[in-house]
Amino acid sequence: MIEVGIVGGTGYTGVELLRLLVRHPDVHLRAITSRSEAGRPVAELFTNLRGHTDLRYSHPDQADLAGCDLVFFATPNGIAMEQAPALLDAGVRVIDLAADFRIKDVALWERWYGMTHACPELVAEAVYGLPELNRGAIAGARLVANPGCYPTAVTLGLLPLLESGLATLGHLVADCKSGVSGAGRGGNPAMLMAETGESFKAYAVPGHRHRPEIEQNLSAALDKSVKITFVPHLLPMIRGIHATLYVPLTGGGDQAELQALYEKRYAGEPFVDVMPAGAHPETRSVRGANHCRIAVHRPDDGDTAVVLAVIDNLVKGAAGQAVQNMNLMFGLPETRGLELVGLLP
Amino acid sequence: MIEVGIVGGTGYTGVELLRLLVRHPDVHLRAITSRSEAGRPVAELFTNLRGHTDLRYSHPDQADLAGCDLVFFATPNGIAMEQAPALLDAGVRVIDLAADFRIKDVALWERWYGMTHACPELVAEAVYGLPELNRGAIAGARLVANPGCYPTAVTLGLLPLLESGLATLGHLVADCKSGVSGAGRGGNPAMLMAETGESFKAYAVPGHRHRPEIEQNLSAALDKSVKITFVPHLLPMIRGIHATLYVPLTGGGDQAELQALYEKRYAGEPFVDVMPAGAHPETRSVRGANHCRIAVHRPDDGDTAVVLAVIDNLVKGAAGQAVQNMNLMFGLPETRGLELVGLLP
Amino acid sequence: MIEVGIVGGTGYTGVELLRLLVRHPDVHLRAITSRSEAGRPVAELFTNLRGHTDLRYSHPDQADLAGCDLVFFATPNGIAMEQAPALLDAGVRVIDLAADFRIKDVALWERWYGMTHACPELVAEAVYGLPELNRGAIAGARLVANPGCYPTAVTLGLLPLLESGLATLGHLVADCKSGVSGAGRGGNPAMLMAETGESFKAYAVPGHRHRPEIEQNLSAALDKSVKITFVPHLLPMIRGIHATLYVPLTGGGDQAELQALYEKRYAGEPFVDVMPAGAHPETRSVRGANHCRIAVHRPDDGDTAVVLAVIDNLVKGAAGQAVQNMNLMFGLPETRGLELVGLLP
Amino acid sequence: MIEVGIVGGTGYTGVELLRLLVRHPDVHLRAITSRSEAGRPVAELFTNLRGHTDLRYSHPDQADLAGCDLVFFATPNGIAMEQAPALLDAGVRVIDLAADFRIKDVALWERWYGMTHACPELVAEAVYGLPELNRGAIAGARLVANPGCYPTAVTLGLLPLLESGLATLGHLVADCKSGVSGAGRGGNPAMLMAETGESFKAYAVPGHRHRPEIEQNLSAALDKSVKITFVPHLLPMIRGIHATLYVPLTGGGDQAELQALYEKRYAGEPFVDVMPAGAHPETRSVRGANHCRIAVHRPDDGDTAVVLAVIDNLVKGAAGQAVQNMNLMFGLPETRGLELVGLLP
Repeated sequence: MIEVGIVGGTGYTGVELLRLLVRHPDVHLRAITSRSEAGRPVAELFTNLRGHTDLRYSHPDQADLAGCDLVFFATPNGIAMEQAPALLDAGVRVIDLAADFRIKDVALWERWYGMTHACPELVAEAVYGLPELNRGAIAGARLVANPGCYPTAVTLGLLPLLESGLATLGHLVADCKSGVSGAGRGGNPAMLMAETGESFKAYAVPGHRHRPEIEQNLSAALDKSVKITFVPHLLPMIRGIHATLYVPLTGGGDQAELQALYEKRYAGEPFVDVMPAGAHPETRSVRGANHCRIAVHRPDDGDTAVVLAVIDNLVKGAAGQAVQNMNLMFGLPETRGLELVGLLP
Repeated sequence: MIEVGIVGGTGYTGVELLRLLVRHPDVHLRAITSRSEAGRPVAELFTNLRGHTDLRYSHPDQADLAGCDLVFFATPNGIAMEQAPALLDAGVRVIDLAADFRIKDVALWERWYGMTHACPELVAEAVYGLPELNRGAIAGARLVANPGCYPTAVTLGLLPLLESGLATLGHLVADCKSGVSGAGRGGNPAMLMAETGESFKAYAVPGHRHRPEIEQNLSAALDKSVKITFVPHLLPMIRGIHATLYVPLTGGGDQAELQALYEKRYAGEPFVDVMPAGAHPETRSVRGANHCRIAVHRPDDGDTAVVLAVIDNLVKGAAGQAVQNMNLMFGLPETRGLELVGLLP
Repeated sequence: MIEVGIVGGTGYTGVELLRLLVRHPDVHLRAITSRSEAGRPVAELFTNLRGHTDLRYSHPDQADLAGCDLVFFATPNGIAMEQAPALLDAGVRVIDLAADFRIKDVALWERWYGMTHACPELVAEAVYGLPELNRGAIAGARLVANPGCYPTAVTLGLLPLLESGLATLGHLVADCKSGVSGAGRGGNPAMLMAETGESFKAYAVPGHRHRPEIEQNLSAALDKSVKITFVPHLLPMIRGIHATLYVPLTGGGDQAELQALYEKRYAGEPFVDVMPAGAHPETRSVRGANHCRIAVHRPDDGDTAVVLAVIDNLVKGAAGQAVQNMNLMFGLPETRGLELVGLLP
Repeated sequence: MIEVGIVGGTGYTGVELLRLLVRHPDVHLRAITSRSEAGRPVAELFTNLRGHTDLRYSHPDQADLAGCDLVFFATPNGIAMEQAPALLDAGVRVIDLAADFRIKDVALWERWYGMTHACPELVAEAVYGLPELNRGAIAGARLVANPGCYPTAVTLGLLPLLESGLATLGHLVADCKSGVSGAGRGGNPAMLMAETGESFKAYAVPGHRHRPEIEQNLSAALDKSVKITFVPHLLPMIRGIHATLYVPLTGGGDQAELQALYEKRYAGEPFVDVMPAGAHPETRSVRGANHCRIAVHRPDDGDTAVVLAVIDNLVKGAAGQAVQNMNLMFGLPETRGLELVGLLP
């Protein structure tokens, strides 16, 4: 059994980690910390867990995290960079679900996240936890930076086409839509149901933190600088991300070739599903599941490919991917504990 | 492995059965029939199943249902009563998720369902599949009538209090609210999102088919005729039933006694969760899960107890309860394949 | 033109008052106050108002409220009782949309609202602003207590039946459901879309502040003490209240008599619509409109009448009723500025 | 008073026309036809109209449409082209809310709509009813083709930038999202709430009928052939369209210039609202209102402008724009009967 700790388990990635880990056959949940909820049963805060676990929140000072094999940080940005070093020194492996170790360029990170990085030396060591890109490195990593939700969908959606050379790298567009759970459990009036229900809007059009992460992923994969126009939108629903990706083509690549390209690239991937030509993936098909479903189109045989990619932002976009990374790090089958069927309807 | 067949698997109870059964370790799905979808992979119709099963719909005439150990009917009312007899004769056990075998009084059934019953003799044999009431009989049954969604929530919510003798039997009220998935996948314009979203209404106030089923359950348990005022409402959401039950008290029974009564009645029940005093169960706490969560109140120490009960109408209210019954019928642990954590948020 | 001021216009009742008043032909909006938003155009906070008004929020200390003919308080409870006396002394008439003047029994009010009342003497003078009950008194009032949302729906739904003598007064039940806008615009995490969407629950079952208000209304109308079991629930939608009312009958009163009773009681009422026998009013039929629609049933000719009443909690349940009261107070046609058609779909 | 008839008023554009016209001070609703609902009061089908009109549906054969000044067709595609000629001959003016007269290239129309056009000669005469483009021609028109919902939002959003010469015409992208009411009131199972709620997907990526309409608008305005990649998506909500438009820039045009460009182009337009720089328009700000709100961005001073445009698909995208056209045709102030404030929240 892997002895697992969770730091900061009162948000949506926290409860989602718990949902997955309480049923994971190789995990023993040793501790979950929360300053504000110390002593309270997790199932009192998240009643879906009633009957599944007796675990209580521990005060961060009293939890035996150093005795864990693995600690997940499900904290706001800026916490893991403070606490991870000591755990790593104690031989504990770490997966950070926040953004502290995602951006390799520390100055760029500091600009977007508005803080000074506490352990830049670990940024270099950290492995970006997108298994479809970094499977080997993840297996051996001490410290994994779990990807952002939008970057997961956009990167998986764009990679095959960009790697193929069939696409230009100018005028890439990622028009992304997310359910409200991505904004977390904090008391932000803008996320009230009366504010977000039955309405739709874009946000952060001038700039969003996930753009540099996406550009880093694509630039690294292609070994050249890639820029993208990224516009996130807020959906009047709870879970799910849909990325609609517009890729100018250099010329070749008909619908069948594009389809074959994606199928080949993701053959064998347990959690990436290339749908048949002509398909329109729905976010609900992955609700609660760790899959990313992708469809590729070339409308009217025109000059632009359209790629559609869906994930559950809390699963493949957060807690599920973290468990997938854990499985890789501990030599388990990658799908262990993640054989989840999407909840439809 | 139990060889399982499903008749009529294109509706919501069908896809929900599939979601549960494709992960059930003791089940081999042998066939699922649909006249309209014969030959089509189930995962093409319900894309959440992609990657989980290669099963295709069979034409009813070609499916080897007689070779199954168990056949589920996830059909409209009136189908199982036509087809079950031959299967039973062939030694196949049957669970009907529709209403054909729920009402013992055949004349009453015919009045509410507007058809002549095709096999009244089997109605007598059929066991009403509410494990918390009939566990023993279910285990030995050839034919199980899976309960209706509202009757499951209302019966579980009322039983302890009515059995206790603390309640009067006059002026019982069950004010129930259901998500739209209860209305099925048919093309009913009244169930369009543009009709049901952002709105709320009662329906069938003059009379609903689940009232005689509720009254039968309560009357059988108390061995006297029980009447109830039952008003169903349609919620602008997909899954979940919330029953708010008003029970006039004879006098005694303070909050603590009522709480103890429920805890005692359901001690040991794997799928009935009596919440702490003062709780307000949320439907989302059981989304996708087989639990019924119940809270009991006596507001202001008044003359009326208020019981709150929630289930997922497609799980404990349909497919999950059917699997629970299957587990009982085949000697498996009752929770096998049903260790599901509610999807929250 | 009536010179109108609004105190505290940053919440949902505030924006709804603005929506109605910017189109009201007899109103000049002189000032709207907000400490936090002073100087900001109201249309910047509530973008639906762009193009309809250039009004800016004033600091409370600088707004010329004393120069108004009428001031609406769209504030949290406890503000109007502090500020109304000075305005009344200055000859300004006042409509309080909060609860400060609703409950005649000051001690009872203080118990439920947890504060000491600042001007008990005005409580006696204040007129409860339900026009269908108090039309005459409202017309002459200096100070109107605008009713709560639930009490409006429940009182209008129950009155005809209780007044008729056909009902018993024991075991009255009001099972009420409200959209989330009733909880206001404050940053309450429990009202996030990720918490309230796709879920349903009861709340405040042990006791809710609107119960004494309902009981006061019914007791006053019948001139005897009336108790009720009142359970509010939270709907996964924004606007609308649905009250399902269960009334034990003394015996007589078939469906047709009940129907006639309601039609007669509300004949001539511009904003109460008694629907045909057998109807099930939908909240969307009054979305954005000032109507209360009511249907009365006697299911199965049983011992209990079921009354269904719907309103928009922000209109007839708050701002619309306040404007209706204003019209009465200033001798305008009662429907002036309120000829609103519900937004369906 | 304008004598008005409506052909086919049982869908959502029909009820929306009724909502607007029953309050329009210069309109007398003479007849509304429906084969299936003949004789039934419109307020029985659409209960929001109760108390606002006593109008009943007429059988098409019995309605005196020839006696009207204006007839709206709120019918499926293919009806108006059959019936408009006779009305026009009788001196009745016509506004078609369907697509029969929108596309000037009859062969192109026939390919996309899959039928032979019944009166190609009238296609040439018909005026495309986008007032911001064709105000003068609309005023004198006998026959107006009311624009599609997506083309309204996309055309208004793109025009200023394309006309300015600051944009290239290659790689234009319109990523559009619509509420479900755009799909109509027919009994399409795909539009059930259980299918569309809490989920999001693109549709018709290979090709959608509104693309040729958009391209026709842009090509006509620029007097050269314009192509666009158009991807519509389905939002889990009822009303509203959001167009996110990506326009590659030729180089010049910083944020301030773009802002000035839009403000200048739409100065004086009563129903186009250019929001301040940095804004993100929300669909709810125009719910029930006839406005189109637009914001223009140049993220990171990059090579692509991002334009955001929102409308209510049933108002500015259908019935409201039709009334705006009627006002122009009959010499009324353009805003008459359309002074509607969006319903927020």
